[in-house]
Amino acid sequence: MSLVANPWLRAVAVPPIAEAQGWIEGRSFPADRPLIDVCQAVPGYAPPAELTQHMAAALQQPSTHRYTDIVGLADLRAALATDIVRAYGLAPGSVTADNVMITAGCNQAYCLTAAALAKAGDEIILPLPYYFNYQMWLEMIGVTARHVSFRPDSGGEPDLAEIAAAINPKTRALVLISPNNPTGAVYSPAYLAAALDLCRRHGIALVLDETYRDFMPHDEPPHALFKDDAWADTLVHLYSFSKVFCLTGYRVGAIIADPKLVDEIGKAMDCVAICAPRIGQIAAIHGLSTLGAWRGGNTLLMRNRLESLRQAFTRNDLGYEVASAGAYFAYLRHPHRGRKATEVARRLADRQNILALPGSMFGPGQEDYLRVAFANVDASMMPEIAARLAADAADGKW
Amino acid sequence: MSLVANPWLRAVAVPPIAEAQGWIEGRSFPADRPLIDVCQAVPGYAPPAELTQHMAAALQQPSTHRYTDIVGLADLRAALATDIVRAYGLAPGSVTADNVMITAGCNQAYCLTAAALAKAGDEIILPLPYYFNYQMWLEMIGVTARHVSFRPDSGGEPDLAEIAAAINPKTRALVLISPNNPTGAVYSPAYLAAALDLCRRHGIALVLDETYRDFMPHDEPPHALFKDDAWADTLVHLYSFSKVFCLTGYRVGAIIADPKLVDEIGKAMDCVAICAPRIGQIAAIHGLSTLGAWRGGNTLLMRNRLESLRQAFTRNDLGYEVASAGAYFAYLRHPHRGRKATEVARRLADRQNILALPGSMFGPGQEDYLRVAFANVDASMMPEIAARLAADAADGKW
Repeated sequence: MSLVANPWLRAVAVPPIAEAQGWIEGRSFPADRPLIDVCQAVPGYAPPAELTQHMAAALQQPSTHRYTDIVGLADLRAALATDIVRAYGLAPGSVTADNVMITAGCNQAYCLTAAALAKAGDEIILPLPYYFNYQMWLEMIGVTARHVSFRPDSGGEPDLAEIAAAINPKTRALVLISPNNPTGAVYSPAYLAAALDLCRRHGIALVLDETYRDFMPHDEPPHALFKDDAWADTLVHLYSFSKVFCLTGYRVGAIIADPKLVDEIGKAMDCVAICAPRIGQIAAIHGLSTLGAWRGGNTLLMRNRLESLRQAFTRNDLGYEVASAGAYFAYLRHPHRGRKATEVARRLADRQNILALPGSMFGPGQEDYLRVAFANVDASMMPEIAARLAADAADGKW
Repeated sequence: MSLVANPWLRAVAVPPIAEAQGWIEGRSFPADRPLIDVCQAVPGYAPPAELTQHMAAALQQPSTHRYTDIVGLADLRAALATDIVRAYGLAPGSVTADNVMITAGCNQAYCLTAAALAKAGDEIILPLPYYFNYQMWLEMIGVTARHVSFRPDSGGEPDLAEIAAAINPKTRALVLISPNNPTGAVYSPAYLAAALDLCRRHGIALVLDETYRDFMPHDEPPHALFKDDAWADTLVHLYSFSKVFCLTGYRVGAIIADPKLVDEIGKAMDCVAICAPRIGQIAAIHGLSTLGAWRGGNTLLMRNRLESLRQAFTRNDLGYEVASAGAYFAYLRHPHRGRKATEVARRLADRQNILALPGSMFGPGQEDYLRVAFANVDASMMPEIAARLAADAADGKW
């Protein structure tokens, strides 16, 4: 006899990042052909020294070691509301501190939001390819994930008619991610407005994860949804401080929603975390209030990486096609038709020293794809990635 | 129209600590009659300077800002296993790093464990009075919490026959907390052995939360459960680094379980948190490996606070009775028979400047009780607490 997990959890796939990292465990890589790790989305640079110095100084304050309120530090809630007003070009007061709940990362923001909106037996719509943790969580709490097709022909924007057809009385939310993980696709303001309208007409939530909004390919606001006076009747916006300020290890994210829904989600936050770690919240406040220039510099850096990747991938013998790319990710169509994506990803790890994730980790029908988190890698490495992919495409042996 | 949470979550009580803190919001307290805040269990002292210096130095390492493995840093897993072998007097290897999963606090350890063992429709047994977050979480994921009576006549140890009678085919676990929150009761090794045996015979998990094990009233190991070679077939142990090293704001806790169950819980951890914050994990490693003397000093400090409280509470006119006390908490029976516990707690806040939690926050049938987190308060304050309680008892007006 031994303790076993409940059948819902047992049926959930193993965590993809850990599985992929296992493929190279114990291996060492030659200096002239180092590992190119484009598996997990982590900033390929460190936070600025100014930020870590600020955190070190905060460690001298006794309050730093203590819990915060469940919803997070008041200063961070206010600073994020102000940042959203700026980034989306809103009238002051369109989003306020009362709309903000700080969480321990954006994954947690999603988990709490999904569990708050839907109970076991309900449904949530996740377009394909999905972010794997979002699917896993629904499975383990007994919520049915309803999928809609990947549409590389429409810039990766899921078809709204197909979404509408998937909505039924059990549906509680549509989840969109823009810029998208894993495809990098940036959904247009017009598309997002139509999605909000669709959700509102059906009385379901639009959960919009904008973790990567600081890495848009242009300087325009990502969308105008917050300009709708009634946005909070439908929209729940998710955000992360991990990528923008290189704080992945500190776990700080946020939910922007109707204050009454924030109160309800707070019950779940209290249970799952009590509060987000305070030192990360302190760092996020400092980042929002003083690191605007540094943040802007990274936006440009990431655009440069994307441009370098696109440039490098124009070589005729690449074999791999860019199905979609933007912000942090490229979603590539591999040339090994009929092969499973995991076979291709393992082969790239084994022979080319590139660690990318197979599309199959992002849902059914994704065997032809790989996710490349190119944001981890300096622009100067993009030709090397292209060269290794071309070498893989040219290698007929299995 | 507005977004509403699902009915399971809506039915959950508001977070008790935040509610109680709301009672004194905006109030200021005179210097000669300051607020005595015994509402939330937080160490009343700061972490040692040596620890905060170690953390500040860690901030200079780029790796500090990054995710850890889902299960936590290997060094922390190993250090905690070693600490358990020491604290429980075990043969080396009885508990190993493979048994350890690091979580963002013990609340999270519990939430993930409960959700891993039970799905919606299943049952978990929570003795009364329960720790409120443990009840709230089961309600919001659709797991039925089955209660068993508070037994102040048995030193607060729930009756095993009553527990056995509550077990049915849907039961997945019994949750015990020792030293207990909210009663402070320390369950005996014999009781815990019998509880393990009972759970094993019924094929359910014994989830044992020992957050307060560093504050035992004696130097003996808390129990001998880990000496049972097959402990992992039934026992899941939960721990927190928050109280012992004053790291509440960093969110670090742990689950000790069968490695296969750890793997399953890791799927949930990946979704809810990705990993526990690394800086807190770094602090916990340092604490376990170098702060043994400081930790031992705090054990004695807390015993001294308990002894001072017991001494102060011997006054004849106290009115309040100590139903149970130990480690961090005293569970007091108030003298206002027939009054709701919340009325009494609010009256203490309003008139005596003492913020304690009403028993009703810990479950049904607890209207006669209050929880006092005396660990927050210096030993020298215990007579003042007693004097204020006596003044409350003597005050006949409502």
